[in-house]
Amino acid sequence: MESGLASGESVLYYHDILFGGNDITNATSARATNGTGLGKFVLGMLVVFDDPITKDQHLHSTPVARAQGFYFYDMKTTYNAWFAYTLVFNSTEYKGTMNIMGADMMMEKTRDLSVVGGTGDFFMARGIATFQTDEVEGFKYFRLKMDIKLYECY
Amino acid sequence: MESGLASGESVLYYHDILFGGNDITNATSARATNGTGLGKFVLGMLVVFDDPITKDQHLHSTPVARAQGFYFYDMKTTYNAWFAYTLVFNSTEYKGTMNIMGADMMMEKTRDLSVVGGTGDFFMARGIATFQTDEVEGFKYFRLKMDIKLYECY
Amino acid sequence: MESGLASGESVLYYHDILFGGNDITNATSARATNGTGLGKFVLGMLVVFDDPITKDQHLHSTPVARAQGFYFYDMKTTYNAWFAYTLVFNSTEYKGTMNIMGADMMMEKTRDLSVVGGTGDFFMARGIATFQTDEVEGFKYFRLKMDIKLYECY
Repeated sequence: MESGLASGESVLYYHDILFGGNDITNATSARATNGTGLGKFVLGMLVVFDDPITKDQHLHSTPVARAQGFYFYDMKTTYNAWFAYTLVFNSTEYKGTMNIMGADMMMEKTRDLSVVGGTGDFFMARGIATFQTDEVEGFKYFRLKMDIKLYECY
Repeated sequence: MESGLASGESVLYYHDILFGGNDITNATSARATNGTGLGKFVLGMLVVFDDPITKDQHLHSTPVARAQGFYFYDMKTTYNAWFAYTLVFNSTEYKGTMNIMGADMMMEKTRDLSVVGGTGDFFMARGIATFQTDEVEGFKYFRLKMDIKLYECY
Repeated sequence: MESGLASGESVLYYHDILFGGNDITNATSARATNGTGLGKFVLGMLVVFDDPITKDQHLHSTPVARAQGFYFYDMKTTYNAWFAYTLVFNSTEYKGTMNIMGADMMMEKTRDLSVVGGTGDFFMARGIATFQTDEVEGFKYFRLKMDIKLYECY
């Protein structure tokens, strides 16, 4: 990564392709639960993912990591989500994981989540993961820009 | 807040009104899954919430934050829960989030969860969130007193 | 524990007996959701647990703690999971909790998760929980060796 995660900052792109029932080859995530009837914004829909992470915006670039975890929608008045996941790095450049959780207030331009721990090359890391919505295609595909800043490392 | 979150401690009240099917206006949370047949204490029932946080016990006081996240029941011999959520502050007083997770052993008078990260005014915070059950009305409504103590801030 | 959690390291065993529908007495966990159709490895199956933790490999040894939380399967090409849970200690030796989250890449010999917080005797702990699969009996029972190392304590 240009600036280098080891030196504390990096921009990554997260691609989520929600399973629609027939697209097993392309899909990277699936609904474990459907939305409830509380409001019109799928509150309660929980999605499990194993999503590719790339250095640039292109879905088909070679992934530098996987994001494994889940998100769910949690508001009745707008689309709003909550994430917990692990960035899994397994390349020549980096081996290790970062664990991240927090609210994704989708209507805000940027929103900050917490990097609460790390392992391997990111041993005991803490920091901030800033989300920015980069593209949305209904419930089929979305891309997030994740700006990771680590403030504590060993 | 009286004692001030910035100086490390604050008492907050969390209000959860579980969606019953018809009370969309009042409800603040909903079941994403129902309890399983393992025991009689709804083990496996998972609830997604966007709950108001107030400074006093009154449900209709102006919220000082939202709590966004989920809890589920996890014991077969008694009511016992597990929480992960974000306190979202967006007022003139505070802007930022705190990320919290841990076991809610409902049968104990008080129980401690971990504040594992924070953003904005709570940048990189860590600490303890102590829960105390303040009121329960079946599965319709419950109120928790949350005593937040931050031990690491920047 | 031999080396002592207080001094930073300990080996623990985690036993999970998944509810099959009739074995209420023995079961310690249950499916809150079933697998989806995305692949053949139960992606989306989410399990809530209250599992015994022992010092040795024997399921029927006196537990030294409970593990309360959840895991779900998240890959379409192999069995792979994600965990978030609390170790609850309530013995003469230790009282308190540790909060743990991370990816469980089941196909790796060992994998590291993050201890992101603690309470009581483990006040403000951080560290690494290393998983090793110790035994698997289909979806009926599995045992993990958890090697806990704490690097930050008060």
